[in-house]
Amino acid sequence: MINGYRMSSEEPPNLRHFEDLEIGQTFESGSHTVTKEEIIEFAEQYDPQPFHVDENAAQKSAFEGLIASGWHTAAICMRMFVDGFLDNVASAGGRGVDELRWHTPVRPGDVLSLHVEIIEKRSSEGVPGLGHVHAQLSGFNQDDEQVISWVLLGMIEQQKSA
Amino acid sequence: MINGYRMSSEEPPNLRHFEDLEIGQTFESGSHTVTKEEIIEFAEQYDPQPFHVDENAAQKSAFEGLIASGWHTAAICMRMFVDGFLDNVASAGGRGVDELRWHTPVRPGDVLSLHVEIIEKRSSEGVPGLGHVHAQLSGFNQDDEQVISWVLLGMIEQQKSA
Repeated sequence: MINGYRMSSEEPPNLRHFEDLEIGQTFESGSHTVTKEEIIEFAEQYDPQPFHVDENAAQKSAFEGLIASGWHTAAICMRMFVDGFLDNVASAGGRGVDELRWHTPVRPGDVLSLHVEIIEKRSSEGVPGLGHVHAQLSGFNQDDEQVISWVLLGMIEQQKSA
Repeated sequence: MINGYRMSSEEPPNLRHFEDLEIGQTFESGSHTVTKEEIIEFAEQYDPQPFHVDENAAQKSAFEGLIASGWHTAAICMRMFVDGFLDNVASAGGRGVDELRWHTPVRPGDVLSLHVEIIEKRSSEGVPGLGHVHAQLSGFNQDDEQVISWVLLGMIEQQKSA
């Protein structure tokens, strides 16, 4: 158990465990249409820079219009990751994220989707019953431009012994 | 100009530019008291895993109670970073984040604060007028436990020539 990152023993059927994931497996998830209202709502609470919250200021900036907070883009992609992947996996939480990059601004009306690839897996040395699984997540807009990417350092439960 | 990451020329007085920041400078920001309601509200929208949205499920999990989404913790710290630092800096946006780590779960009632240190700065080779500034951000709870950390790869405008 790492910092308590271990779930209840009540498991739904067909839940995928560490053993069910293989390097090279890919998953697609989405799509989510980004609205002006949610860009402003998120940014007013968490990232109130002018080009995220103020249409006029954003228009005068070099972005030439409102763009989503990079943390908002990450959060939208996280939701697609939960819906399209984690919901069906015995996740034991995440240790962190490497190489998060914002490639292209996200604007109102953009339709985002998520591509996920398993890029690494190994049993935990310190924690029996857990495995480390690293996934490359890439978010794209409706023009197939990559808007965000990161490597998630996840932990997945191994199958329980009978 | 990188992807349009350049701000308006209308600058408030006393704005700090690339030249005003030095490696080793530190800044403190916060505090923010995390509520159960905001943990659930954020997670229902962006990270609806049981231990973020369902008190009963969270209690039965190894976390033994509701914990904030790691992305929510990052967003709360981003807000403290904007209020305590970026508001007064000629920021031209962020390229990304390295080494984001969640060290300790964040729970309802936790009081978070942020410590920032400038760890790298260099002029942009490709973009005249911009500089790269890397900052180490560390979020702490009321017991001085580190809950989150990351390296922000930021871009700051240089002073305009007269």
